[in-house]
Order: sequence, then C-alpha cells, then structure tokens
Amino acid sequence: MSDTPRKIGILGAGQLGRMLALAGYPLGLEFRFLDPAPDSPARHLGEFINAPYDDEAALAEFVTDLDLVTFEFENVPAHVLEYLETRLPAAPSRQALATGQDRLAEKTLFRELGIETSPFATIDSRADLERAVTELGLPAVLKTRRLGYDGKGQFVLRTTADIDRAWEELGDVPLLLEAFVAFDRELSIIAARGLNGETACYPLTENHHEEGILRLSRAPAPRLDQELQTTAERYAGLVLDQLGYTGVLTIELFQRGDQLLANELAPRVHNSGHWTIEGAETSQFENHLRAICGLPLGSTAPRGISAMLNLIGTTPDPAAVLAIPGAHLHLYGKEPRPRRKIGHITLRADDPETLRRRLDELQLSVG
Amino acid sequence: MSDTPRKIGILGAGQLGRMLALAGYPLGLEFRFLDPAPDSPARHLGEFINAPYDDEAALAEFVTDLDLVTFEFENVPAHVLEYLETRLPAAPSRQALATGQDRLAEKTLFRELGIETSPFATIDSRADLERAVTELGLPAVLKTRRLGYDGKGQFVLRTTADIDRAWEELGDVPLLLEAFVAFDRELSIIAARGLNGETACYPLTENHHEEGILRLSRAPAPRLDQELQTTAERYAGLVLDQLGYTGVLTIELFQRGDQLLANELAPRVHNSGHWTIEGAETSQFENHLRAICGLPLGSTAPRGISAMLNLIGTTPDPAAVLAIPGAHLHLYGKEPRPRRKIGHITLRADDPETLRRRLDELQLSVG
Repeated sequence: MSDTPRKIGILGAGQLGRMLALAGYPLGLEFRFLDPAPDSPARHLGEFINAPYDDEAALAEFVTDLDLVTFEFENVPAHVLEYLETRLPAAPSRQALATGQDRLAEKTLFRELGIETSPFATIDSRADLERAVTELGLPAVLKTRRLGYDGKGQFVLRTTADIDRAWEELGDVPLLLEAFVAFDRELSIIAARGLNGETACYPLTENHHEEGILRLSRAPAPRLDQELQTTAERYAGLVLDQLGYTGVLTIELFQRGDQLLANELAPRVHNSGHWTIEGAETSQFENHLRAICGLPLGSTAPRGISAMLNLIGTTPDPAAVLAIPGAHLHLYGKEPRPRRKIGHITLRADDPETLRRRLDELQLSVG
Repeated sequence: MSDTPRKIGILGAGQLGRMLALAGYPLGLEFRFLDPAPDSPARHLGEFINAPYDDEAALAEFVTDLDLVTFEFENVPAHVLEYLETRLPAAPSRQALATGQDRLAEKTLFRELGIETSPFATIDSRADLERAVTELGLPAVLKTRRLGYDGKGQFVLRTTADIDRAWEELGDVPLLLEAFVAFDRELSIIAARGLNGETACYPLTENHHEEGILRLSRAPAPRLDQELQTTAERYAGLVLDQLGYTGVLTIELFQRGDQLLANELAPRVHNSGHWTIEGAETSQFENHLRAICGLPLGSTAPRGISAMLNLIGTTPDPAAVLAIPGAHLHLYGKEPRPRRKIGHITLRADDPETLRRRLDELQLSVG
C-alpha cells in the first residue's frame, strides 16, 4: 500500500462525497471533507471541516497530511483550486473543472473535438439575445454559463415576448442561448479514465427529468443499440483524452434518431450513475477513486438491469420501499425540503418485465 | 422515518462493525461505536468511544440518545448486557448472546431442537477428560467452552499421551471434548430473522480453514443439492425461533454424506458471509440492520457465484488484486500482523469456470 494514496480530501461533503467515502473505505482509504454546510450528508463518514471553501485557515487544515484531493462538484472557486494544486495532487485537473464550470467552454470543447451539439450562441448583451433568437429560432433555452444545476439558471423562451422577462431574470451574468432540439430522449454516459490513460465506459443511461430535476434513470438504456453506445464511448474518449482527465466524467446527451448530441459535461460522478452501486460490477464511486489513486479501473459491466428513482422533497416509508424485492434504498441523511434530493432508490432485476413490475410497485409506494 | 430507529450503537468497532456501518448509512442510519482498541477499523465511520466495555462512564455516554444497540461479537460481559438492556432495545437478545458465548449452551440447544451434532462431553476435571477420551475415542478436540475463536482455545488430542499437555494448556477453564468427525466439508448457513418473526437464509457457503482461521469461502457452495439447503434452513429456523432471535445468526456445519451436523453458532454477521456484499442481492450486514430496525428483510438470492478469500497477516498489492475482473477488495484499515485478518477479497463471476480461473489468478497475486 506504500505507493497508493491513503488519505483523500474531498471538497464538498454532499451525497456524492458520502457515496465516494462509502465506496472508498473498502479500498483502505480514509477521508477528510470540507464543506460550508453544517449538516452535510458526508459529515459522519470521515473528518469533517465545516467552513467556507475559501477560508484560508480551513484550507490549510484541510490539506494537512492528505495524499490527494478530489471534488464532488465543479464550482470550486479558481483561487481555491490554485491553492490546492500547489500543495498536493488534485484530480480531476483545474482545466477539467474550469471546463465543467462554464457551458460555453463545454460546448466549445465538444465542437473542437467534432462532437455534435445543439445549435447555440453566446449572449453577452440584450442585442446578442435578440440576434440569437432570430438566428436559432424559438423555442430556445437561455442558460447562465456558470453555476446552473437542477434546472436553476435557465429560462425557456417560447415567443419573442418572453425576451424581456428572460433578460430581466438572467441578464446580469454571461449567458448562452440554446436552440430547442426535438430529441427522442435524454441519455448520459459515465466514463472513467485512469492515471495511465486507460478508459472505461458504463452502458448508456436513459434519464427522465421533472421540473428540471432528474427523477428516473434506466440502465442500460432500453432499446440500446451497439452503434449508439459506440458513438457515446467515442465522444467520452475524445473528451477524456483531450482534457488529460483522471477520474469519472459524465456527458449528458440528446438522442435524435441515430444521432447523439452532447448537451453538457460534469467533471465528476453523476446522479444518473447512482444505479452503478448495485447495477454494475464496479460502481462509479469506486471507479472514480480507483482512477485518481492510480489503481486499475474495475469492470463497468452491468449486472442485470436497473432503474434509479430520485427521492425529491419527501422521504418515503422505508418499510414499504424495502418490501419490494431488488429495491435498494439510499438515504443521504438530509432534512426533506421541497425540490431537494434527499435520497434515491435503485431497483435491480434480471429481466425487463420484472423490473417494470417492481417499478410500478415502487412508484405507488413512493407516491 | 419517525418510527424507524435512526441512531444505532454497536458494541465493538472491528471489521464487522465497519461493514455494518457501510451497509447502514444508505438506510439513513447513524452509528456510535464502543471499543477498547484505539485503532479499531470502524473508528472513522461514526462516533467512536475508545474505552473498555465495562467502563461505566463510557457506557453511559455510549447509550445517550441511541435508539438501539447491537453487537459485532458475542463475548460481551453479562453485566454490560444487563446495563444496556435496561436502558434501550438491544438485539440480538441477552439469551442469544449468552448461548453464543458458551459451546456447551450451543450444543445443548442444538440437541434440544433435534439438530444433529458431533458427539461431545462436558469436561470439568481431569477425570472427566480421561473418561470422555475413553467414551468418544481419539482423535478428539478439547475446546474451551468460552472465548474461543480462529482456532484459539483448542487442542487436538491424537493419542492418550496428549492428555497431559492438553490439560496443562486448557485445564483451568470449563471445557468440552468433541469427537473428531470424519466430515466431507465444512459449510455455514447465514440466516436472518426480523422483528416480526420473518426469516430468510442465504445459500449454504463452503468454508476452508488454514491453521484454524477461515481462508476461503465459496457460495453458493459447489455441488449444493436442494435437500441439504432445506436441512440447513430447517436447523436455522429452529434455532432462530427458539431464541426469539432478531438479526443475523450463523451456524457452522459439517457435511457427512447427506447428513449435516451443527458445529457451533455465532449470534452475529459472520466472516463466511462476507461474500454477500457483492454476491447476494442484499448483504448480511444490511439484513442484520433491516432485521433489528424492524424493516422487511431483503432478498438473500445469490448474484452469480462468489469466492471470498481472507487476507491474513499481509496486505497484497491492491493494483494486482483490482486488475482481476470481478475482484472486490475489502481492507479493514488494520496494521498487518501474523495471523491477523486484515481484509478480504470477494471474486464474483457468472459461471464456475470463470470463477475458478479468476481465483487461480488471485491466489497467484495474493501469494
């Protein structure tokens, strides 16, 4: 074990940090978290420093004796990243996080690599917006370039009359206008790249959102043909190699016929990959840790078929959930609040018919 | 969640406590451990009180605000159990733990329930030992009634000349002499019983020991016929119901032809059930927690076939282990020492031939 990192720092102690730690202890790893929220989901799963990310004293305490630092989210302030990278190995890299922080940087990267995206325009002024609406047509989605997640920082324009309100709501930060793509479904690919450049991809996941928040994922995506999987893996490989990436990275995609359009990337483990805990031979969390620790990646082969249902806003009766065969409950230790992800349930089965039946049962019990 | 226990106390913070906590966080549980060893494997996985089990102040601190207490081992001092049971719900019960502490109580329970065991005799004096050797014949195993594990507290008598040394080594505590049974193989059954009396059993596991320490388990046991499984489940059901048991319990068995002899029981999750983490739909650790929390038991169905190899005394190169497809590494965060269990590896595969090949590869890399 002498050469393998042992103590990992994670910036952020949310559910992703929590599930990373749960996957990491069996590998002999230990964890330290830094997070400004006192009731962070990962707080019991290692040393927990409760302070703002840019608190210098807290950062100094955070890095002490760590072998490696990683991130459970991409919105790390640039000067914090700089501080960390001068003191210890950090993965993924500053460049990868910076790309994941900015929708324009993501789209630009996709285009440079020949990866198809939906049409978009950069919006820095109201005049830009009016011009882009004319060029791309409506409906279209106005998005903040930075800090958007779970449907936040987005405005759907349906008619030119919406321009006023959209500009009023979002106009004080750099923006992007994306053409509305008539897609068949949303997919995502979770991919890992090791320190030595080896890569591995999970089967494509089909994602369903409600009010901008992921509600249901199915994996492997139903009616998944090999060509689609190959295209997605090619996209992921191009992005991973271009960024010299280490760890797990996620690309959200739109499928339109046999075409895949890249929508955005997340330089981290991803909600649409939670099914891998029970539904794949190695989870996305374990593979992220294996990658950043320089260990061989684990098999990404699926084990049966899975459906992952997010628990949003309310906790279901755990007894009702656990009475369903193949149901795996994951609560994050968060207080329920409207629109808050407080847990998820993964259903696993060996055939689609059983999975469908169990999912019906689960949706009744979750309400 | 209001009726489900939330904060669980575990007496003992070894690897079993560690794996219980890793299985319990996803259920929304939190943990507090009490253990006299400062470097206990579970120390980072919850609140950790480092004190002797019978330290009154530590016990008072331990029980504060707990919903429930459980145990990762059976050798809890009787007055500590009494203290705990007067203050909060405890599972398994005092009676179950007391039975698991004493080989004579175990054997007596088996006999009362009509469960076959190997012939044995109680030894309270040297005269008892000489009489028992004549009655049962040699070879035979002299065992301490209490506190034996991993081959400790045992002496194999091969000729009457061994009586002197055996008595010298073990004669100052209550003993049992067991006839040497010519068995085909060692098996174990891991069983769970819920608060409502529902029971579930995992497929029989085949166990191989080296120098009295479990080295390799295979599950489901190779060449497992349904009748054998049915007999083992009947034994487990009888014991669970007789003890009014709540939680996971393990019975170690000898197979002789189509006959199963009960050897001993452990009122807890068990080393021979570690394969259930990846090799069954629900792990023994999760099912123990589901049981004691009054939640429905999870499916005990196997997922493919598994082999579990204990890591004893030395840590293998994790990179070599993890390069084997289907290998799942579990390190306990313990300093390597001779004869010390410092981790285990579970290999999973979908067919026996693949599993055999991977196991050969693993045994080469572990050495």
